[in-house]
Amino acid sequence: MTTDLIKKEVAIEFIIDGKACKIGAMAKGSGMIHPNMATMLCFITTDVSITPQMLQKALTLSVEESFNMVSVDGDTSTNDMASIMASGLAGNPLIAAEGEDFSTFVAALDYVNHQLAKMIAADGEGATKLIIVEVKGAFDKESAKAISKSVATSNLCKTAMFGADANWGRVLCAIGYAPAKVDVTKVDLAFQSCVGKVEVCKKGAGIYFDEVMAKKILSEKEITVDIKLGDGEASAIAYGCDLTYDYVKINGDYRT
Amino acid sequence: MTTDLIKKEVAIEFIIDGKACKIGAMAKGSGMIHPNMATMLCFITTDVSITPQMLQKALTLSVEESFNMVSVDGDTSTNDMASIMASGLAGNPLIAAEGEDFSTFVAALDYVNHQLAKMIAADGEGATKLIIVEVKGAFDKESAKAISKSVATSNLCKTAMFGADANWGRVLCAIGYAPAKVDVTKVDLAFQSCVGKVEVCKKGAGIYFDEVMAKKILSEKEITVDIKLGDGEASAIAYGCDLTYDYVKINGDYRT
Repeated sequence: MTTDLIKKEVAIEFIIDGKACKIGAMAKGSGMIHPNMATMLCFITTDVSITPQMLQKALTLSVEESFNMVSVDGDTSTNDMASIMASGLAGNPLIAAEGEDFSTFVAALDYVNHQLAKMIAADGEGATKLIIVEVKGAFDKESAKAISKSVATSNLCKTAMFGADANWGRVLCAIGYAPAKVDVTKVDLAFQSCVGKVEVCKKGAGIYFDEVMAKKILSEKEITVDIKLGDGEASAIAYGCDLTYDYVKINGDYRT
Repeated sequence: MTTDLIKKEVAIEFIIDGKACKIGAMAKGSGMIHPNMATMLCFITTDVSITPQMLQKALTLSVEESFNMVSVDGDTSTNDMASIMASGLAGNPLIAAEGEDFSTFVAALDYVNHQLAKMIAADGEGATKLIIVEVKGAFDKESAKAISKSVATSNLCKTAMFGADANWGRVLCAIGYAPAKVDVTKVDLAFQSCVGKVEVCKKGAGIYFDEVMAKKILSEKEITVDIKLGDGEASAIAYGCDLTYDYVKINGDYRT
């Protein structure tokens, strides 16, 4: 049994030392727990020539910022998995240490994993939209991650997104209770989607904004919650989705 | 604007040194955030004779185990408050230090606050039932609290309770990812309500149970999730509620 609704596949080509290299990947997962089977699974293949140690290092680096920043419902699964296999057939010089080639590979892998992470969040159980929480100007990386995850996981923010309401108070609240270093009097907040951007909060206080436009922006399928802190230089992105009637149906009414 | 549906009031009488003492209290709150006004408020009055220092100490002790163990939606409010006032009119000898009289007073206060905490959780936004998560045998107090809160806050446990499904896998999962010291191979789990009790898990593994009976138990208005760990002597109780269509409606559709 799976509640996945869309296929989650990505394939890209990139160049290392003049050689065309490829990464292909597929993933499944839409709720964090299905007690009868595995939940999130991701299989990545590449033809890059790379040592097992550097391959593991690249995967660990990339997963930390992509899959580990996805939250469908805040419930950590018992059995998530991301695996990677490299055949070496691309013919690039073996990547055996950090350097330009390794960085190129990690950048390509990051692209693939972030795309899949977005697909997983967008296809979250009952979700009608993808919520990308982008934090900039944080005191440090830990704070940036904690804040972006806190907003992406907040049930009150998630229901507001479902209702297409620019409820900046709930976002500020989730920023405030995140286990992070943050000065809430320096927070700028905007909501953005393909139809536009609306600033709703400056220096931690609400400002006048066009509610009709805000509603239009938040009615799209992919929303960015744009959080600018004034605490430092660190940034992070978390991927989430809205909390809907169908989430309750899938997880509460699933046996009737 | 408030989403409270029931009045939350408690009054009790108790004896200190032969003198009848009283505590009366009222509270409001059903979601953790309403940006337009305060959220949880609690006003407690008593006629006990007690110094301000000991009164504050009693309140702090009691709040930690009662109101601070309530979760409606995991979203910490920006402005909860519990206040207490003592007139001294009961005529008991002034309580100015710890001892038997102080303990009697704290026990009475605990009773009042736990009753109110239960009422708040039961009247949680959209809730159809009160979920009492009782943890015993934990390694230490912090672990007991973290585990009980983790289960009470889990969206997947909350939707399962809404669906009256004895989904022990979700409970074990929330125990497992709690920031706590726990050996999941020692967990016994049962669900209980006024119509009976059903054991669903022994030593971390599911056991055969009567699903019809389990459904009946979980269809009641007050459910106890009875978690027995094998790690130590500490215990804790958290108060929560189920996650329902109406929670989504109240928090997602509130402006339409």
